[in-house]
Amino acid sequence: MQKPSIPKGTRDFGPAQVARRRHIFNVIRRTFESFGFAPLETPTLENLSVLTGKYGDEGDQLLFKVLNSGDFAKDVTAEDLATGSKALLPKVAEKGLRYDLTVPFARYVAMNRGTLTFPFKRYQMQPVWRADRPQRGRYREFYQCDADVVGTDSLLCEAEIVLMIAQVLGGLGLHDFTIKINHRGVLRNIYQALGGEGRETDLFVAIDKLDKIGRDGVTKELLERGFSEPTIETLFALLTVEGTYEEKLQRLLAGFVTAGVEPDGARPNAADEDIAANYRGLTELAEVRDLLVASGFKQFDRLEFDPTLARGLSYYTGCIFEVKINNVQMGSVSGGGRYDNLTGSFGLPGVSGVGFSFGVDRLYDCLEALDLFTATAETPTRCLITHFDVASGRAALPLLAQLRATGIPSELYPDAKKLGVQFKYADAKGIPLVIIMGPEEIAAGVVKVKIMQSGEEKLLPLGEVVAALTVE
Amino acid sequence: MQKPSIPKGTRDFGPAQVARRRHIFNVIRRTFESFGFAPLETPTLENLSVLTGKYGDEGDQLLFKVLNSGDFAKDVTAEDLATGSKALLPKVAEKGLRYDLTVPFARYVAMNRGTLTFPFKRYQMQPVWRADRPQRGRYREFYQCDADVVGTDSLLCEAEIVLMIAQVLGGLGLHDFTIKINHRGVLRNIYQALGGEGRETDLFVAIDKLDKIGRDGVTKELLERGFSEPTIETLFALLTVEGTYEEKLQRLLAGFVTAGVEPDGARPNAADEDIAANYRGLTELAEVRDLLVASGFKQFDRLEFDPTLARGLSYYTGCIFEVKINNVQMGSVSGGGRYDNLTGSFGLPGVSGVGFSFGVDRLYDCLEALDLFTATAETPTRCLITHFDVASGRAALPLLAQLRATGIPSELYPDAKKLGVQFKYADAKGIPLVIIMGPEEIAAGVVKVKIMQSGEEKLLPLGEVVAALTVE
Repeated sequence: MQKPSIPKGTRDFGPAQVARRRHIFNVIRRTFESFGFAPLETPTLENLSVLTGKYGDEGDQLLFKVLNSGDFAKDVTAEDLATGSKALLPKVAEKGLRYDLTVPFARYVAMNRGTLTFPFKRYQMQPVWRADRPQRGRYREFYQCDADVVGTDSLLCEAEIVLMIAQVLGGLGLHDFTIKINHRGVLRNIYQALGGEGRETDLFVAIDKLDKIGRDGVTKELLERGFSEPTIETLFALLTVEGTYEEKLQRLLAGFVTAGVEPDGARPNAADEDIAANYRGLTELAEVRDLLVASGFKQFDRLEFDPTLARGLSYYTGCIFEVKINNVQMGSVSGGGRYDNLTGSFGLPGVSGVGFSFGVDRLYDCLEALDLFTATAETPTRCLITHFDVASGRAALPLLAQLRATGIPSELYPDAKKLGVQFKYADAKGIPLVIIMGPEEIAAGVVKVKIMQSGEEKLLPLGEVVAALTVE
Repeated sequence: MQKPSIPKGTRDFGPAQVARRRHIFNVIRRTFESFGFAPLETPTLENLSVLTGKYGDEGDQLLFKVLNSGDFAKDVTAEDLATGSKALLPKVAEKGLRYDLTVPFARYVAMNRGTLTFPFKRYQMQPVWRADRPQRGRYREFYQCDADVVGTDSLLCEAEIVLMIAQVLGGLGLHDFTIKINHRGVLRNIYQALGGEGRETDLFVAIDKLDKIGRDGVTKELLERGFSEPTIETLFALLTVEGTYEEKLQRLLAGFVTAGVEPDGARPNAADEDIAANYRGLTELAEVRDLLVASGFKQFDRLEFDPTLARGLSYYTGCIFEVKINNVQMGSVSGGGRYDNLTGSFGLPGVSGVGFSFGVDRLYDCLEALDLFTATAETPTRCLITHFDVASGRAALPLLAQLRATGIPSELYPDAKKLGVQFKYADAKGIPLVIIMGPEEIAAGVVKVKIMQSGEEKLLPLGEVVAALTVE
């Protein structure tokens, strides 16, 4: 006899968990839709030709690959086998599981370019799979909720990402959060201030680890990569400018000017003459802030311009975002940014877009850690009808049908078991109302209604039960 | 440059399709919940030890298997390779994709037997994957919506399945349907009436093909399997009894008595002395009908007792169901039945249950074929604000925020493009309302609202727009 189990890193979600997760999905969906994002769903299986090479070498390792159907090994030779798994792979698997929602989205846009209306705003809430080592807050199957706009470089999109993040977190009762924002242009200007060119990625990758390995760790790594000590001093002076969002913009501007960084241009249609009009990154960050002010955004204490924010993924080219819940020990619950060439590898170059993603599983864990879920029953049932024997059970059926027809999810206990067993069922499932329908009650044309939480019981004429319960 | 594609048998669902599919899911979910079924979700990946051997040899072939992570071929020897794919499989894959929702449910019940409250009523709406040859109405990734009760043998569950099917189809506007019902006990008694024993499965499998290969085909197959011509005559006489639900029960009863079929017992707690009290299948079918009458079910013209209904899956032991939409050329959209030993292979024997499933993709195709979907826009957006330049765009932001705050999904066109481009966007996406906010309007403190369908335009004071649109 096998003892059943599920693969590590995966989970079953019972009734209470599904109800809680649905609450999170609903808040996110309502927010996305109120901002005009339309839903898209893509297949779980994608061709490996679509997935491979999009997530770096590590990502390719973490892709779940699906064996070809039928006689999958028919083209494999002994030589293939001798060369090892990597050489074998293309012969036995041509499909894989969705690894994120961004690449399938890019693939969809490229495939449907002829029929889509741009700017195209889509959201997508689906599971993704990664063969990562499972640990706290990291699963092999988990949900992402993405919203992206492609086909416009308007910074309104960036401002609306901030608005949506604040609305979702507020809607979930998560009020102590920090939205970190930065711009790849700022990082590039910082790099230029150090006198270097063309190795920005090395820098981004090192800075990205600041949180994990600290200033000393990053210094060590940069020294190893050939950066000099004075350069690293300058770097940290720029990265760790202090003050408000606006003050930081100004101090970085001064720093870039002092270091003689070549201006890389304000946006051609920038709204107004700006403190940072000479550097695109600073200009755009200033404009995002202005758009937020104009939109009535009030939570600037929760929006932090953080020049150390790098985000590893190299396809970002403009603003980048990352969100933390402050009073919980948990990685970021949301992140995103602008990319200028997402669909290029699918034959559609030059489509600018910006998007972000919520990690539902991390939001769930935060809400649980902060005890922000309201009590969730193990069943949607509001009312259980108990009965004494086959005849009284059958006599209850019209009432059962009426309750359901008026929108009260209801059950008749299916067997004529002892009343105690039936009550225990209601109790274990968290059913709030129990109707008792025994031969006596039926004879008198009444039913007894018990409110489980208070224990209160009342006798109601059979004809009035539905109306009485509908009012409650 | 690769041309992107998706695996055959899979589909992308754009905004309009997702909205339509969500309508179907909502009708099903509301029905399941109003009957007290609670949601369950299980992982996409299951261990192959859980899946294999549960769906017959053909099913095992159709399982999608997932390659082990990392160096998957490390234990494969040249001898393994020489023996072929079947021998190789256990060395390279230990996980597979969910093939249906029943086996994961059984696995879940067995794993959580200690904490679940029985009877356990769960519903599950998730995709499943089968490496089947794709064709019309058959996909490799498709959704099932299952509801099951385990832990009771009450026939109320069977009656409620009929009620739920009728409610879901009615809720979708599908009124011309037939719910076929039969009972494995009836099929067994028919087999006994032929004088045989112990080879019922052969019979079930042959009868199951009646729809496809016709009476002649079944006759041929039964002759090959060693049944005699007179036996087959008797068989068809019993299978094709005519009349109402009740008349068929009586005619089969007479047939069984005439043929000397040993009574296999009425249910010990049957509601009343019944026409068919001697044969369990007939008794139970009669009781299901009585429970439906008592529940106020009126659609007996759509409930057909069909003694030829067999349903291939061998784990059914009691009532079986299958549902067709009559005015569309389409396979069954729902089916199910009672099983006495679903969890036995997971170490939990003797748990009786009954369940059924809706095929969402087939329901979708039926609704489309019958033109029963209402027009669905490509976006949830109700209102698009158009503008003329950066300044008027920015001036629109407070109005945009107000519209969203009052629950009207809204967008500001993100770029200051020509008005014609902005209107084309609204038109292509089916956005019903367009607000025009140009420098003139802003100076006058008004906005122009255009109702796209009628072309009607009205000028409204800026302060009254939200209230006016909320009323509409």
